[in-house]
Amino acid sequence: MLEQINSQRDIKKLNINQLNVLSKDIREFLIEKVSKTGGHLASNLGVVELTLAMHYVFDSPKDKFIFDVGHQSYVHKILTGRKERFDTLRQFEGLSGFPKRKESEHDIFETGHSSTSISAGLGIAKARDVKNEDFNVISLIGDGALTGGMALEALNHLGHDKTKMIVILNDNEMSISKNVGGMSNYLSTLRVTKTYKKLKEEVENIFHMIPKIGKNMYKTATKVKGSVKNFVFENNMFEDMGVNYIGPIDGHDLKSLIYILDKVKKNIDGPVLIHVLTKKGKGYKFSEDRPEKYHGVSKFNTKEGLKTSNKETYSSVVGETLCGLAKEDKNVVAITAAMPDGCGLCNFKEEFKDRFFDVGIAEGHGVSFCAGLASNGIKPYFPVYSTFLQRGFDQILHDVGIQNLPVKFLLDRAGLVGNDGETHHGVFDLSYLSMIPNMCVMSPMDKFDLINMLKIAKDLNGPCSIRYPRGAIFEYKKEDRTFDFAKWEVLKEGKQIVLLGIGKGAIKALNIGIRLKQFGIDAMIINARFLKPHDEILLKDITNNYDLIYTIEDNVIIGGFGSYIGMKLEELNYAGKLKAFGIEDEFIEHGDVDLLEKSINLDEDSILEFILDEIKEVREVI
Amino acid sequence: MLEQINSQRDIKKLNINQLNVLSKDIREFLIEKVSKTGGHLASNLGVVELTLAMHYVFDSPKDKFIFDVGHQSYVHKILTGRKERFDTLRQFEGLSGFPKRKESEHDIFETGHSSTSISAGLGIAKARDVKNEDFNVISLIGDGALTGGMALEALNHLGHDKTKMIVILNDNEMSISKNVGGMSNYLSTLRVTKTYKKLKEEVENIFHMIPKIGKNMYKTATKVKGSVKNFVFENNMFEDMGVNYIGPIDGHDLKSLIYILDKVKKNIDGPVLIHVLTKKGKGYKFSEDRPEKYHGVSKFNTKEGLKTSNKETYSSVVGETLCGLAKEDKNVVAITAAMPDGCGLCNFKEEFKDRFFDVGIAEGHGVSFCAGLASNGIKPYFPVYSTFLQRGFDQILHDVGIQNLPVKFLLDRAGLVGNDGETHHGVFDLSYLSMIPNMCVMSPMDKFDLINMLKIAKDLNGPCSIRYPRGAIFEYKKEDRTFDFAKWEVLKEGKQIVLLGIGKGAIKALNIGIRLKQFGIDAMIINARFLKPHDEILLKDITNNYDLIYTIEDNVIIGGFGSYIGMKLEELNYAGKLKAFGIEDEFIEHGDVDLLEKSINLDEDSILEFILDEIKEVREVI
Repeated sequence: MLEQINSQRDIKKLNINQLNVLSKDIREFLIEKVSKTGGHLASNLGVVELTLAMHYVFDSPKDKFIFDVGHQSYVHKILTGRKERFDTLRQFEGLSGFPKRKESEHDIFETGHSSTSISAGLGIAKARDVKNEDFNVISLIGDGALTGGMALEALNHLGHDKTKMIVILNDNEMSISKNVGGMSNYLSTLRVTKTYKKLKEEVENIFHMIPKIGKNMYKTATKVKGSVKNFVFENNMFEDMGVNYIGPIDGHDLKSLIYILDKVKKNIDGPVLIHVLTKKGKGYKFSEDRPEKYHGVSKFNTKEGLKTSNKETYSSVVGETLCGLAKEDKNVVAITAAMPDGCGLCNFKEEFKDRFFDVGIAEGHGVSFCAGLASNGIKPYFPVYSTFLQRGFDQILHDVGIQNLPVKFLLDRAGLVGNDGETHHGVFDLSYLSMIPNMCVMSPMDKFDLINMLKIAKDLNGPCSIRYPRGAIFEYKKEDRTFDFAKWEVLKEGKQIVLLGIGKGAIKALNIGIRLKQFGIDAMIINARFLKPHDEILLKDITNNYDLIYTIEDNVIIGGFGSYIGMKLEELNYAGKLKAFGIEDEFIEHGDVDLLEKSINLDEDSILEFILDEIKEVREVI
Repeated sequence: MLEQINSQRDIKKLNINQLNVLSKDIREFLIEKVSKTGGHLASNLGVVELTLAMHYVFDSPKDKFIFDVGHQSYVHKILTGRKERFDTLRQFEGLSGFPKRKESEHDIFETGHSSTSISAGLGIAKARDVKNEDFNVISLIGDGALTGGMALEALNHLGHDKTKMIVILNDNEMSISKNVGGMSNYLSTLRVTKTYKKLKEEVENIFHMIPKIGKNMYKTATKVKGSVKNFVFENNMFEDMGVNYIGPIDGHDLKSLIYILDKVKKNIDGPVLIHVLTKKGKGYKFSEDRPEKYHGVSKFNTKEGLKTSNKETYSSVVGETLCGLAKEDKNVVAITAAMPDGCGLCNFKEEFKDRFFDVGIAEGHGVSFCAGLASNGIKPYFPVYSTFLQRGFDQILHDVGIQNLPVKFLLDRAGLVGNDGETHHGVFDLSYLSMIPNMCVMSPMDKFDLINMLKIAKDLNGPCSIRYPRGAIFEYKKEDRTFDFAKWEVLKEGKQIVLLGIGKGAIKALNIGIRLKQFGIDAMIINARFLKPHDEILLKDITNNYDLIYTIEDNVIIGGFGSYIGMKLEELNYAGKLKAFGIEDEFIEHGDVDLLEKSINLDEDSILEFILDEIKEVREVI
């Protein structure tokens, strides 16, 4: 059936049986394609019928769909003319794994981080009202994302404003891992209400009377029942906030979904939340059994499923080291914002149940919760994706920074993350953290650095942050290279120029420095583990003895390592030249990290070439 | 009665009548003191009985009080030994207007921004659990602050965790202005529940039986009634999230407050929210009538009340200009996060009802809401305090920046704000905004600049920000000095050095440059209105012709204007010297702005002196 679908309009001609066949086709398509490119699988398998029903009842792009977090928009992409490009999914210059406005007029708002869709949808709805336009706005949000504070802020505003807007709550009892929190418990109670059963029966009866459902039949069916009021569930939290609540509805039952969406479209004029129950990973045995493992996947064999990787990653080393620290110190605790797996905390979670806190998708609260813990003598480690911690920026500054509380931020997925793209690259943290007084900013070059930093962090008197990249961990040397607070490491002495690298930048500096030798250039190579406070003695020494310094980082240059060093060099009256390699003032797309780095001249070859050219120029001038 | 109270322990000896007399005394004390120093009045008048009851029932500092936003902690300060220092309130080196840990062991967690207290309190409670300690944690939060997403994130976590913690909801139907949102409507319905009346009667009956209430009597009284279960209100939103709900309770009725707090302390083991109704500004006619005007006040005559000021401020010019722009362009709208008065939007709110949006204390949602509006062709202006917009950092980057949406951020109270101190100084925005790709960062030197920037902003294709200080607006010249996008203004030509000032820094540059003349130094003075994009032609010109450049800003230097210019100068191979004047890497306390600037050598005299010294040195070297 899928081969006949070239645009969202094509599905409107289908009957229920055909739509069900199409669902099956789409699932097969998803499993096959994602097994080859990697990507978000389970979340998309869960919303096949729901996305079909949305496109069946509404008219995109006139009606506006906003996909919260966006990783469940594959079915939407398949239906809106992008089926043929799925082999390029998440590849450099290929289809994005998230909604992208430049990709299609059906992607009307870009997402990536959690809990933004109701805010954006309400903005779009109010723009419609101001301009006297007429269309529907539908925000699709997961139950996990609903624990994010801004989703609740938006519901608060929506309930007050009363404009017409539809929120579809895609409740799969999951955020990325198993969902937590009072909200989750609450949704569980709603799941078992009578309404659900009543609705099922009613819809079944109607469709029983009408043998074949096509667009016309369906219209008749809705007329039969008139208003949707029967299904409105009173006295619940959403109604309390002023938002009509309908549900719960079986999210894999196309009949019910279409029936309800159509009723809501026609009969409800204000804000409404439709509670839909789906199964994450639906239709593929492996992902049904372990949806959290199939949330985001690398390539895999569809028949065998994912293979468990034993690769040592930065995240796994963090998890292991924290377990060790927790064993020796009872005040060590770990916090996660709904990402225990991604952040390497699975063992910690099991081993130290009472010292492990999952705060939900709620980085802002998570940070201030850590501040509270630290204010009472506890040593909180908070591993969190660099880009997601942006959500807690104010709290880091206001609750942790001002009070100089010893919270340890562990920024996972720092730097370019690759295929997830713009919204997930962790390339701002060096800037947003280094501006905060009292904050110590570190970044390990390798496994040894990371472990030692985690240990140093434990008994610091103030806040600190350690940022490290995604993926397999680099191991420079096996031997002990123990270092003190705020000390850089000279990886190689040299007489002509200085390469100052931080984190992954230090690895690049090392490789480039060695290659420079072949060109007769003797570079001093430094692993600048600490951005703030930096190694004052070593920097001063460099300033006095060299007049060509290069910094290398995988953060934006503005406010980052290079700009910090530049400032310090000014203070030291450095008269030589500084060139900062890092990310220029632009957002970086998705794709393989190596390709991305090449595209912005941040790969080793490009940096090497630049340095060689510059030195040549300088020599010619002399 | 107040003269007998030197510590919180002293109030435990008092009976109800004496406590009521004390309440009256405290109100008089507050009105008198705040009328002389300025400060937060209405919020403190509202919590006199509540704070007394908290200290009566609980034992601070063993039991931990956290005051959300903190501006209602004056009564707490009076009771905990700081009465005598109230003449220094909010003055340089005096008592802070917010909880400060270094000030007293009773201030266990510092606050300033909204909605953090439940997160912090839960952190403290879990630290207690991990360490097997035994004490109570009480977070006092207003109904306005409850619209902030992180408060709801924290409730979600608390309801799930089930540890013992008390949240007191101080419901005065206000945030700073009149409260908005679904949550507010919901609280209204709770306010009229039967529980309230039942409780009142029950408490009255008990106290009727016992003629005189002292500590002992009171103990008996509570024993009489046993559990507090009678007052638990079922089936509401908080209970839905797993948090026991009790209330509402009259927040000015000491008997009821003490009775309930004691019952909760003794009988409830899990999380509980006590809903208390108070009147903001209670006990002072002027502030009862107009609590929003008496939220934060300058000095005033207690008999006559506040005088309305007609002083033209940056905020009022913004409000007026936006009204003009809205008249000429139907797509201009204004957004506020619960601060229409503070941000100068009162007239806009009246004149353009359908184009004015108050999102509540919810900056994160506010930003993405603006993104939604802008994505559909609307031109949203969002005036917001610089320091509060930190709460929306991720949303600016992720929802506005990546999509390059034309949202206009107007950062009020940028720079040092004075008496509110650390938590309110807007000294990070140049850093956190300039790192965001696509973001244009402007700052006006004066009224003309501001108006012209607001106009330029209207039709920009991408996001922009305009930051301006608190207070009376500076007017450099009356005549038209119209400028183009990204163009700086040469305020004075000069041959020897360059002073590059941004915002208030440009005013300082102007004054310093003129004074330098007297010392025979001919300085070029530039009003660097645009940080990003900057005036490339002018900067290049400077680079070629000068070798001593000074930048002046009232932002942190790290990642700010000076560091941005430093980076650009490196790119231009500038071989001269740059010195950046701005805020060093530390938090700045409260006090008069002039005194603060002097204390960090950021006043005109100090900068002038530094420049003179440096030039002398340079000359001596030559």
